[in-house]
Amino acid sequence: MDSSQFRAAAKEAIDEIATYYETLPSRPVLSTVTPGYLRPLLPESPPEEGEPWEKIQADISRVIMPGLTHWNSPKFMAFFPCNSSFPAMLGEMYSGAFNAAAFNWICSPAITELETVMMDWVAQLLALPKEFLSHGEGGGIIQGTASEVTVTALVAARERIIRRKLIDMPEGEEKIDTAADIRGKLVALGSEHAHSSTQKAALVAGTRYRSVPAPKETNYAVTASALRQTIQECRARGHEPFYFTITLGSTGTCAIDDLNGIAALAATEPNLWIHVDAAYAGSALLLPEYQHLCPPLAAFDSFNFNLHKWLLVNFDCSAFFVKRRKDLIDTYSITPSYLRNPHSEAGLVTDYRDWQIPLGRRFRSLKVWFVLRSFGAQGLRTFVRRTVALGVFFADLIKRRPDVFGLVTEPAFGLVTFQIRNLGPLGAGARANRVVPVRDALTNGFEPDADAQYAELVNQKTREVYEAVNAKGEFFLTSTVVGGQYVIRVVSATLLSEEKYMERLFDVLVKEAGGDVEQNGETC
Amino acid sequence: MDSSQFRAAAKEAIDEIATYYETLPSRPVLSTVTPGYLRPLLPESPPEEGEPWEKIQADISRVIMPGLTHWNSPKFMAFFPCNSSFPAMLGEMYSGAFNAAAFNWICSPAITELETVMMDWVAQLLALPKEFLSHGEGGGIIQGTASEVTVTALVAARERIIRRKLIDMPEGEEKIDTAADIRGKLVALGSEHAHSSTQKAALVAGTRYRSVPAPKETNYAVTASALRQTIQECRARGHEPFYFTITLGSTGTCAIDDLNGIAALAATEPNLWIHVDAAYAGSALLLPEYQHLCPPLAAFDSFNFNLHKWLLVNFDCSAFFVKRRKDLIDTYSITPSYLRNPHSEAGLVTDYRDWQIPLGRRFRSLKVWFVLRSFGAQGLRTFVRRTVALGVFFADLIKRRPDVFGLVTEPAFGLVTFQIRNLGPLGAGARANRVVPVRDALTNGFEPDADAQYAELVNQKTREVYEAVNAKGEFFLTSTVVGGQYVIRVVSATLLSEEKYMERLFDVLVKEAGGDVEQNGETC
Repeated sequence: MDSSQFRAAAKEAIDEIATYYETLPSRPVLSTVTPGYLRPLLPESPPEEGEPWEKIQADISRVIMPGLTHWNSPKFMAFFPCNSSFPAMLGEMYSGAFNAAAFNWICSPAITELETVMMDWVAQLLALPKEFLSHGEGGGIIQGTASEVTVTALVAARERIIRRKLIDMPEGEEKIDTAADIRGKLVALGSEHAHSSTQKAALVAGTRYRSVPAPKETNYAVTASALRQTIQECRARGHEPFYFTITLGSTGTCAIDDLNGIAALAATEPNLWIHVDAAYAGSALLLPEYQHLCPPLAAFDSFNFNLHKWLLVNFDCSAFFVKRRKDLIDTYSITPSYLRNPHSEAGLVTDYRDWQIPLGRRFRSLKVWFVLRSFGAQGLRTFVRRTVALGVFFADLIKRRPDVFGLVTEPAFGLVTFQIRNLGPLGAGARANRVVPVRDALTNGFEPDADAQYAELVNQKTREVYEAVNAKGEFFLTSTVVGGQYVIRVVSATLLSEEKYMERLFDVLVKEAGGDVEQNGETC
Repeated sequence: MDSSQFRAAAKEAIDEIATYYETLPSRPVLSTVTPGYLRPLLPESPPEEGEPWEKIQADISRVIMPGLTHWNSPKFMAFFPCNSSFPAMLGEMYSGAFNAAAFNWICSPAITELETVMMDWVAQLLALPKEFLSHGEGGGIIQGTASEVTVTALVAARERIIRRKLIDMPEGEEKIDTAADIRGKLVALGSEHAHSSTQKAALVAGTRYRSVPAPKETNYAVTASALRQTIQECRARGHEPFYFTITLGSTGTCAIDDLNGIAALAATEPNLWIHVDAAYAGSALLLPEYQHLCPPLAAFDSFNFNLHKWLLVNFDCSAFFVKRRKDLIDTYSITPSYLRNPHSEAGLVTDYRDWQIPLGRRFRSLKVWFVLRSFGAQGLRTFVRRTVALGVFFADLIKRRPDVFGLVTEPAFGLVTFQIRNLGPLGAGARANRVVPVRDALTNGFEPDADAQYAELVNQKTREVYEAVNAKGEFFLTSTVVGGQYVIRVVSATLLSEEKYMERLFDVLVKEAGGDVEQNGETC
């Protein structure tokens, strides 16, 4: 393919992509292919001779399109959003063209320097404490995903506590042995509702892991006293807590751990690296109405959120801020001779490879720059605020039909969790006909056996409705289990999200639950 | 930016990108900006109001272009190549549009299924042993970089040996304690010339690391006996070797460890996970003349090479093959409730998140598909073969001027390493005027003191010439140190690479070394 063929092919691709976005609302969001659909559509082996682009391009609609789940569809309400936007796509286009494995500053100075400035812009936008900006001892770096960031922070935390404990010991075999002994006693902590990536990070780092209780009574958030108690229990067993993921917006319910209380605790635990996982909800910090959450963050070692979730930068783009970049560099810097260069040796430049686990890096700051400029801070605030409001709107719909639904948590950051309480024929033998919201049924002191049986039936019905909605493919939702309750999660935060799609989903849910759609009134 | 603005902006971007590629040969390859150049070109904070695309786009040439190092330039001869190509760019365009955090099959079935089929295509193309294809117990997965792959393999290796040792122990605290004790004794191994990512991976995994000697006498390759001896030494200290990176194409000189000998050793060390790092040179396995290297690979646990280096797929795209995918899944599978879905539970689908450390994943197989089809197997073979020949061509130029250069290793996979032996005024007080190639001077039994002094002067001169060439910015080279020798590395394997650029570099080197360019003859 020469450059004139590329010009033609790429412009046609642009038209196809634009049309794809224009037609997103009318497509079923969830692919309905069956496992293994794709292999029979392709030859067993790569072609010997090159093929013309027309032939390849035609296969995008034949082979790929049926197997896509459309994350940018306004009917995508599963997991957390993963938004793209046109300026972000332009960023990826240039990034793919200015292709580089930019591990060092000299590999492409623009790639490093734009990243540093963009992370400072983002930190300002979110009103992060100044400690996380690059001007002092801190700074930001773009990583692929929040799960990679968690590993990066946790391993750096593990090595930091070992460095501190062995600071006076000379290098050598004895130090390596002692470090191995310490490593074997270390325990990483996270809320029982923390994303599974913390547990996985502890596994990668080879440390112990223990979860901190975060029950319904604290709205599924970790309190300072729960954390303190877990720390004490670990120490009583001879283990040393060295890392804690504090969650700002849990995956299940968008719960926020007690930031202020744990910030106070942090002052008494200097060897405990506290990492803020705000993967989804972090984006909301650009709204003044959420910025009361920011001051306590100054007490923590690192902060992470994904611009690829809610901030219109396409996947992947996870912003990782640290208060002391030295904590990363002291762990991750290994410089073999083929990576030496005068700029790095003079200490004048940032070599981001020394802040992370992989060597190479993509030019991801370009799409951040394009998105921040194209939408402007105001445009982003308007978007995020609008989608937070959609959660409130949907929760209000849910509350309108206590005969069918029970809200499990109040809407938070656009996320609504609820159960189906209209048990219908399923619950005939149990408490199905009682007209009480599920959460009342689950908490208001019925006889234990009957309650447990009822809760189980509600869980079962919720699961059935959830699976029935997804099986249709029009909407894509996810479910989770919190405090023993099987709940449906709905979060609608794509660029195309609108009230009318929430209303339509509401009608679909009522219908699948066997409720009377007429009673919904004028939603659809 | 609405979709019609996107159509216009993106088409202009396509023209700009095509023009960029057309003009690559005439641009200085290496950016000459000074550290900190970019920040003053941008405002301190993101704009409040959104900006029009015209304004943003104009800043690409003002702010970004001066700070780019052009990895796709034919004058880029540093590190290893990082190639892009037009079909790969089209792949990234669609991937950015079909944006998804595709951790599960259901997140977008096409993303998982195309990846499985493409990895099978790639394995066939490289004549990898059938154990690495997905039909049996193995299979391939795309990761970002070879360094991430090394961590992924090494941690899986660590957990595999622990699982095997503790297979009869019931779950519980005692098992966790015993596992921690074992972990503290584990040692990962790699050639002294293995990429630094193995040492870094051991650091991440919290295990010991020990390098295996690979001296000049074995052409910087690890032999089976060297590996066996290191294993025995580790055991004598009470440590347990559990992982070895076998290098197929070392970073410094493209050395190949003894594949056949170590394959035989592997049969006697079932708990030693042997991971093949063929990050760069792996691409050459698509040429029949290199496929004699493939049969012994069947003895190893995993194999990795980067399509983003030599195979025209832009960064990032690292293919990771395992013989038993269970080895990965047994380590990395953690399934919280919000990731459960009927397809995964039925075991019908691949959830690649369980093969890797991060959760989310990009749609990278699309660009692999486009590149393999657009070039065809033949087109890729022609390209790789042509760049291997460029290494031979350049080494022949070097050999033509023994008064100026000394080859350090024979050309391998297009990589040439050499020193400057024309010491000029620098060497006046030493052995500078002896007309012998450097490697003779370094090996042929001169008096030790004078030899060491001479070698040091050669190293110094080589470094000076290397830095002088890079400072000009026309070419970008890297250097390394092997066996105490400071050498310049030249590898020219971009899509635009041609003999005329090798000739031009040769003239520049002769001139910088103070040699008489006239004697080069008709190179330029």
